Amino acid sequence: MGPAAEGRHRVVVVGGGFGGLQAALKLSRAPVEVTLVDRRNFHLFQPLAYQVATGALSPGEICYPLRAIFKRRRNVRVVMAEATGFDLEGRRVELQAIGAPSATSIPYDSLVVSGGSHYSYFGHDDWRGAAPELKTLEGALELRRRILRAFEAAEVEPDPDRRAAWLTFVIVGGGPTGVEMAGQIGEIARDTRRDFRAADTRQARILLVETADRLLGTFPPSLSAKAARSLERLGVTPRLAETAVDIDEQSVSIRTQEGAVERVPARTAIWAAGVTASGLAGTLGRLAGAEIDRAGRVTVEPDLSLPGHPEVLAIGDMVRIRRDGEEPLVLPGLAPVAMQQGRYAGRLVAARLRDHPTPPFRYRDKGNLATIGRASAVADLDFVRLSGWVAWLGWLVVHLLYLIGFQNRLLVLIRWAFSFFTRGRGTRLITGEEGSRPDSR
Amino acid sequence: MGPAAEGRHRVVVVGGGFGGLQAALKLSRAPVEVTLVDRRNFHLFQPLAYQVATGALSPGEICYPLRAIFKRRRNVRVVMAEATGFDLEGRRVELQAIGAPSATSIPYDSLVVSGGSHYSYFGHDDWRGAAPELKTLEGALELRRRILRAFEAAEVEPDPDRRAAWLTFVIVGGGPTGVEMAGQIGEIARDTRRDFRAADTRQARILLVETADRLLGTFPPSLSAKAARSLERLGVTPRLAETAVDIDEQSVSIRTQEGAVERVPARTAIWAAGVTASGLAGTLGRLAGAEIDRAGRVTVEPDLSLPGHPEVLAIGDMVRIRRDGEEPLVLPGLAPVAMQQGRYAGRLVAARLRDHPTPPFRYRDKGNLATIGRASAVADLDFVRLSGWVAWLGWLVVHLLYLIGFQNRLLVLIRWAFSFFTRGRGTRLITGEEGSRPDSR
Repeated sequence: MGPAAEGRHRVVVVGGGFGGLQAALKLSRAPVEVTLVDRRNFHLFQPLAYQVATGALSPGEICYPLRAIFKRRRNVRVVMAEATGFDLEGRRVELQAIGAPSATSIPYDSLVVSGGSHYSYFGHDDWRGAAPELKTLEGALELRRRILRAFEAAEVEPDPDRRAAWLTFVIVGGGPTGVEMAGQIGEIARDTRRDFRAADTRQARILLVETADRLLGTFPPSLSAKAARSLERLGVTPRLAETAVDIDEQSVSIRTQEGAVERVPARTAIWAAGVTASGLAGTLGRLAGAEIDRAGRVTVEPDLSLPGHPEVLAIGDMVRIRRDGEEPLVLPGLAPVAMQQGRYAGRLVAARLRDHPTPPFRYRDKGNLATIGRASAVADLDFVRLSGWVAWLGWLVVHLLYLIGFQNRLLVLIRWAFSFFTRGRGTRLITGEEGSRPDSR
Repeated sequence: MGPAAEGRHRVVVVGGGFGGLQAALKLSRAPVEVTLVDRRNFHLFQPLAYQVATGALSPGEICYPLRAIFKRRRNVRVVMAEATGFDLEGRRVELQAIGAPSATSIPYDSLVVSGGSHYSYFGHDDWRGAAPELKTLEGALELRRRILRAFEAAEVEPDPDRRAAWLTFVIVGGGPTGVEMAGQIGEIARDTRRDFRAADTRQARILLVETADRLLGTFPPSLSAKAARSLERLGVTPRLAETAVDIDEQSVSIRTQEGAVERVPARTAIWAAGVTASGLAGTLGRLAGAEIDRAGRVTVEPDLSLPGHPEVLAIGDMVRIRRDGEEPLVLPGLAPVAMQQGRYAGRLVAARLRDHPTPPFRYRDKGNLATIGRASAVADLDFVRLSGWVAWLGWLVVHLLYLIGFQNRLLVLIRWAFSFFTRGRGTRLITGEEGSRPDSR
């Protein structure tokens, strides 16, 4: 950093997801020096990762390079590194930078940690290989490879049982991600039947396994029921009040409502259930003696600061918020929550510098959206509950607006328009290991 | 295939690159049953792969799913499989399908083989890991990861020597691909300097090593000289009449014009020199007793048929064409050559069915284009030689026209327009192994 940086209040922001990005953007307008640390060099618009997994969008359309976002915000420095620990007394963040032989550390006056969460696999980490998930771009690309390869394999498989296993897709978890994935696979099966000559893709079996007795648990029951009916029209079978008890590359075993275990031959399993907070939450909690819950979240003060460390703010779905005389508040793991907390954290740091009062964080719930398929979605808003194409249009507009970068908005709009009118998916590419080695025939 | 297929002339096309795709498209209008076999499920527009490697375009914009191309051409079946061999007497192609446990084979009445070529690494296959290439989409993505990571590592590297090694890029091979890659890296170094705070990207050292004494050997010398000058303005140092003699993850050793060996510390090496024909050419040649040259190409008859097997056509840069009293003709390994040969092969098969005469293949050379950077290219056309922005505009138009799919043309046009006006690169994403594992901090 240049000489202009000397003496200014130093803020380190860990994590370039929705929360960290908004904190850094807010702070870029304050008289502080910001260092944004992320292991990746881009911001991932995670709510659309499932569209990458199903070949509707290209990774470059839902990701945006962090450096490009902060190019003209000269008081923000982006560092591509993994935050490995904290020295809360010495006020330093420990880093392992990409390509660097050894760890290093950087000092802060204020720290904002936004580490997010990851899928927990109910403690069965051995299922991870057989059932990829959608939290990372690589997970989405791996799912894309498996889903598309399954249809290709069905096309050349003469044995009816083996072909049926290729055409069986099991999605574990009936939240928004699971519902959206199941709906998209239903649409692929319906819309690509003319692409194949031997396999009948409409015979695809798509099971959506949810332990609770309804889908979309955070929505009102009436919308859950509507979502289930819309999915059934797309050929998806919701398996409610049932649980995946084993997953391997050949099958998924499901404990049914009756208590029996059914082994479903399926070559494609998708994980969308149960998240655990980033390990950074536990690290902060242990260092500060703060409470850590079963999902790994650290309990923070009403102003999102770590107990005893007002200079450290923790935000996003890795935290719970302390309340007097009540259980700590767990907000839903949604982008709007993280974004509001990120902006709040940025404002808080700036307000303290000017000795302004800092009210506690309040979440403004603007509603909840989930899309099911073409012209089909559910919306649970403050003032109204919507389903069908009105909800779907609302979903489209909101997602386009929240995408980073005008170019990406334009490209996604074009992809969606083409998909809508042609029922095609432009990025149905099978990439990755298989068949990708240089030609050595 | 349905009952309509019975009794019709069966054509198998191996390879969905430029040649095979054109053959299958031409044959889709003839009264034949076509099976198009490819290991990948998409056609790659290889001339723009270098723009994926440099973050200017997204893979989904230069690839097009083969099934989408043939969706409405009901006499074409796409099979995702690797062709592993041929039974020329029994007229069958041996296949290993994706996901299938064992090999199989399919019958043909006519066969078109378009296996392409791959980089040979001058026999040093151990260099492949240290110096990726651009023939596959995965190679392009691996290069993108390495090039972008190098700038990120330079930003956090305090040691000046190690930082210099991160900012040194060695491209081996001064043909169009090498020239285009070198020019793009020069532009990244110049245009992203404001994205970094510690590293000065303009200090990047970009060496373009070419064994011949000029770049772009297939162009006239005047255009080679112009290309070299344009590259120098972008900070690229052409190292002519010099040869890479060793490559590892830390350095590239170059034999200089004086005969000394210079070890250049460089963390990024890119391979763009020396191709070898697909192994399918050798397989066909051995089976038919046809000549195979040192680059692995099989010699075919003037009508592109395999000697003694008029029903087998071999096309693209895996063949040489027999000439009376002269050495066999080697055409340049360019998309237009493969496309013309593919269309010729399709016409030939259809003409024979109607007992029409079949003249030998003639290549119509429409010229040669290579781009160097923003508003800079060279063009060697029939009637005129161009350089500068006129050649660059011609290059843009030709590449947009030859891209498959209107959607891709529109998306690429938008990306190029944004890049031109903002000097940004929208898909600068570091993806792949490092940092991509699910969050387990």
